[in-house]
Amino acid sequence: MSVAAEETLETYCARVSQNAKTASRQLCGLPGSTKNRWLLQCGQRLEELVDEVLEANKLDLENASSYSLSNAEIDRLRLTQERVFQIAAGLREIAALPDPVGELIEGSVRPNGLRLSKVRVPLGVIFFIYESRPNVTADAAGIAVKSGNAIILRGGKEAAHSSQAIVSIMQSVGSEVGVPANAVQLVNTTDRDAVGYFLNHDQWIDLAIPRGGEGLIRRVVAEAKMPVLKHYDGNCHIYVDVHADLEKSLNVVENAKCQRMGVCNALESLLVHRSVASEFLPKLAVRLKSYAIEFRSDEESHHLLQSGVLAQESDWSQEYLGPIMSVRVVGNLDEAIDHINKYGSRHTDGIMTEDLSTSHRFATLVDSAAVVVNASTRFNDGGQLGLGAEIGISTDKFHARGPCGLRELTTYKYIVHGDGHVRT
Amino acid sequence: MSVAAEETLETYCARVSQNAKTASRQLCGLPGSTKNRWLLQCGQRLEELVDEVLEANKLDLENASSYSLSNAEIDRLRLTQERVFQIAAGLREIAALPDPVGELIEGSVRPNGLRLSKVRVPLGVIFFIYESRPNVTADAAGIAVKSGNAIILRGGKEAAHSSQAIVSIMQSVGSEVGVPANAVQLVNTTDRDAVGYFLNHDQWIDLAIPRGGEGLIRRVVAEAKMPVLKHYDGNCHIYVDVHADLEKSLNVVENAKCQRMGVCNALESLLVHRSVASEFLPKLAVRLKSYAIEFRSDEESHHLLQSGVLAQESDWSQEYLGPIMSVRVVGNLDEAIDHINKYGSRHTDGIMTEDLSTSHRFATLVDSAAVVVNASTRFNDGGQLGLGAEIGISTDKFHARGPCGLRELTTYKYIVHGDGHVRT
Repeated sequence: MSVAAEETLETYCARVSQNAKTASRQLCGLPGSTKNRWLLQCGQRLEELVDEVLEANKLDLENASSYSLSNAEIDRLRLTQERVFQIAAGLREIAALPDPVGELIEGSVRPNGLRLSKVRVPLGVIFFIYESRPNVTADAAGIAVKSGNAIILRGGKEAAHSSQAIVSIMQSVGSEVGVPANAVQLVNTTDRDAVGYFLNHDQWIDLAIPRGGEGLIRRVVAEAKMPVLKHYDGNCHIYVDVHADLEKSLNVVENAKCQRMGVCNALESLLVHRSVASEFLPKLAVRLKSYAIEFRSDEESHHLLQSGVLAQESDWSQEYLGPIMSVRVVGNLDEAIDHINKYGSRHTDGIMTEDLSTSHRFATLVDSAAVVVNASTRFNDGGQLGLGAEIGISTDKFHARGPCGLRELTTYKYIVHGDGHVRT
Repeated sequence: MSVAAEETLETYCARVSQNAKTASRQLCGLPGSTKNRWLLQCGQRLEELVDEVLEANKLDLENASSYSLSNAEIDRLRLTQERVFQIAAGLREIAALPDPVGELIEGSVRPNGLRLSKVRVPLGVIFFIYESRPNVTADAAGIAVKSGNAIILRGGKEAAHSSQAIVSIMQSVGSEVGVPANAVQLVNTTDRDAVGYFLNHDQWIDLAIPRGGEGLIRRVVAEAKMPVLKHYDGNCHIYVDVHADLEKSLNVVENAKCQRMGVCNALESLLVHRSVASEFLPKLAVRLKSYAIEFRSDEESHHLLQSGVLAQESDWSQEYLGPIMSVRVVGNLDEAIDHINKYGSRHTDGIMTEDLSTSHRFATLVDSAAVVVNASTRFNDGGQLGLGAEIGISTDKFHARGPCGLRELTTYKYIVHGDGHVRT
């Protein structure tokens, strides 16, 4: 949807918001089969029209230099036939997931005969602010509509043509199968004030989801009047306990740190029980040698690792997203728990131990979205945890924690049935 | 906890916050039996020490005139032996509720053998801002601790002595049974800046709950960096459908409007289908005559009611909390739904109908915390819906909707068990 010539930015944003609200009301009552037909048909149409999508993407790639994108950013922006087919496959996967809307969460009959149902319902209108990956456009729209929500997409200008091509397809399929076209709208203005407008109007927007760097997220949190589903950093820990199997621990630590370093569930900080440190840490230094990890350690670990530098206090809180890891020796389980609760980011934290009560105490007292026992921190994502598609990972505790899929984009209502019941 | 002589307000607030955070960590691992023993013992001790509590309350009552409280406010402030015993009984009721902490929400085994549990856990630290009712002090503390949270209470200065007496008892029982004394702290300063400090420190406070007038709530929402559980107005509707049983409808409308007019789930706005309006509205005027309700109606209803005034546009959005009701004739179900979604406050809205598909469409499309079919709107509260004690009613859609009891003060975490699992 474009700003018409005679329109102010405010009128434009108000029109987009009201369209979304109207669409969200229609989506509430839409049967799951219609939403699934839309998802499947969008997938098919994307494949049929792959050349159009690639043509649009070409325009974005031609402009990429004028936005001074890095090579990695250009790579994320680039679509190929294979990538478009992956997007289509993603929509089919969303279609295959159970419909969260209408799910009966709880039900009971009260002593006076009133029948209660607590039923899952859509949130309403989602405002989604993201950066330059065109595949996110289709993903986010698919997840929103499947969960019964209208979505206003505000993508990066770098991917404007690609996103527009994808959204146009989704809207035109919508008209064919009975999903309101305004269920998915792309904001066609690069004016930063547009973002401010939407964030300020909680009568129309029920949830804001920023996906991008910390600067973007902080801006959205500061300005938004509606709730924000947000992801700050993932300063993930593993604690190798006195009861750990050290072979397993070497494998898990290697995987958690090195399988993919630039992601939020990668290991950033290692804690080792004093009794096993002198055996474990030298072995770990050997095991990780080929990855050229820089250890930032307390004195005790530094002595055992024989590599890296001494940690600063600030290292304990840091998410490196690269070949650096902080390391510390602790005297007991509670010291490890306290360290994680003090310096961690409540994202994903693990323990290696074969002792049952130790693992239970760790899982109970570590205040993180995911606590992992004897497995890699890398398992904390929507796909691995069985949620299917995810629209983000929440580092908050309120409403949704960890990976956010279809259910996390819903709320509930009470439906109360009586037969002329009055309160006395 | 008082401000020590040498302490600044900021140091004081930081100390209270950190104490609460530490207590909340201890509460996480506390068995339900300890929390219940605390609740029962607090109830007993309140009864034993009722004279002390009444003595403290007397001081508050003596000061009441200097705060220029209204008679109704003084009545809410006043404790009697009976009221203290009611407070004690309330704590026993909380003890009898199931412990929400540790509840297994979902569990599964992934294809790779990873075992997942999604487990209910406390939110952490709650900052509760409320006005002058001393019974709320005990209620809020009881609900918070039972759900595993530490609470910082910031009550009105009018009830300072009464609240302090109650909190002192709860803290001293805590030391006896093993609930950390700082699980319940009363902020002993009337400095408004103290509120600002807590609202600004989301690293310590996980949730703010304002309970009071709209001004208080708006201030808290504007300043809080953490989520806010809030209750704005309850502009509740009943729609009398063409398929309504008009006798039931007269009873339900009378009850919803007149049983207690000053509460948030009381009826404020009545919609009547055109086909039954000419029969129903004159009967209603007779039925409600003794309550001296002022009708504010559209022309059609006004003509049928033969009483009251014509409604202004602003009447449709208004929560009167008294003997006024807006009335409008609508042409069909969807007009009623649209009216409610446009002017309502998403609190509690009802329909009177004997038609199944009509009731289903209304319940699906009306976007309210509670949708009531053939029963009074007055049933939307924690006790009536079976939640037990409630700490407030949420008019938001995010996290919790409608009455908020123990579960609504919790979040969840994923606990993932492997046996050396790594991601490939």
